[in-house]
Amino acid sequence: MKFLPQTTLLEIEEGSLLQPKFDERGLIPCITQDHATREALMMGWMNAEALALTIETGLAHYYSRSRKKLWKKGEQSGLYQHVVQLLIDDDQDAVLLRVKIDGGASCHVGYRSCFFRALAQHGPETDFTLTFLETEKAFDPHAVYTTDQQGNPLPPKA
Amino acid sequence: MKFLPQTTLLEIEEGSLLQPKFDERGLIPCITQDHATREALMMGWMNAEALALTIETGLAHYYSRSRKKLWKKGEQSGLYQHVVQLLIDDDQDAVLLRVKIDGGASCHVGYRSCFFRALAQHGPETDFTLTFLETEKAFDPHAVYTTDQQGNPLPPKA
Repeated sequence: MKFLPQTTLLEIEEGSLLQPKFDERGLIPCITQDHATREALMMGWMNAEALALTIETGLAHYYSRSRKKLWKKGEQSGLYQHVVQLLIDDDQDAVLLRVKIDGGASCHVGYRSCFFRALAQHGPETDFTLTFLETEKAFDPHAVYTTDQQGNPLPPKA
Repeated sequence: MKFLPQTTLLEIEEGSLLQPKFDERGLIPCITQDHATREALMMGWMNAEALALTIETGLAHYYSRSRKKLWKKGEQSGLYQHVVQLLIDDDQDAVLLRVKIDGGASCHVGYRSCFFRALAQHGPETDFTLTFLETEKAFDPHAVYTTDQQGNPLPPKA
């Protein structure tokens, strides 16, 4: 699968053809959200191969910057992401996936979403404390993974 | 406002303190979604100054890579983004903003969301045609902007 090159600003921003822009590292950022709830699950990166495989197979593929390799989401955990819709933003330099996830969870730490913590207090007086928005893990990462995302042994249970 | 340095993997992934990771360019990606509908509105970038101003003021600030400058969302259009919640992901290298937007629109092309197009057909046979998910612009960009995001005159109306 070969992607179309970017053409004019008008075509890119208002046209009807996918012309994805990969950055100087050959990557495009990808936001993945739950199709039903629109909850943001994770943010990852794709190279051209990962984007092509995502489109061809309907299963989300990413590029791991730390492991420097293609990464089929769920290949270790079984928590595959089935693509319902693939969106592109105005200047076509960011992808949005709407997915259904096997097992109902996405985050390798064990939570449903990777965004499971929020800043407790805004304003200049913040002490940077985070509040947990998910109080229970959706799965036990130690039962699913044997290594972390870098291939190292998992840290001890929190 | 000075951010805390990243410490151990366990603290970063399961701890209760914001320890944002900026990349080699000094940037962290930011996904912005509508607080009420969870619709993904845009994906942008923040440097430390933009993240600090966002936290301090409660208004979304970004860093424009093309213009190489801080960018207070809405400064030209009036479509400010009021932060309801600021989330961080597991490895603290991506920010998620939940916002209320003045004017109900976010995209400089005129649509509610920057993600207003989706791939019409998945699978190896795709011809890369995009379907418009929003059929009417929420505002006329020519009435709001005089230049594009790079400071150039707007392209002619589509």
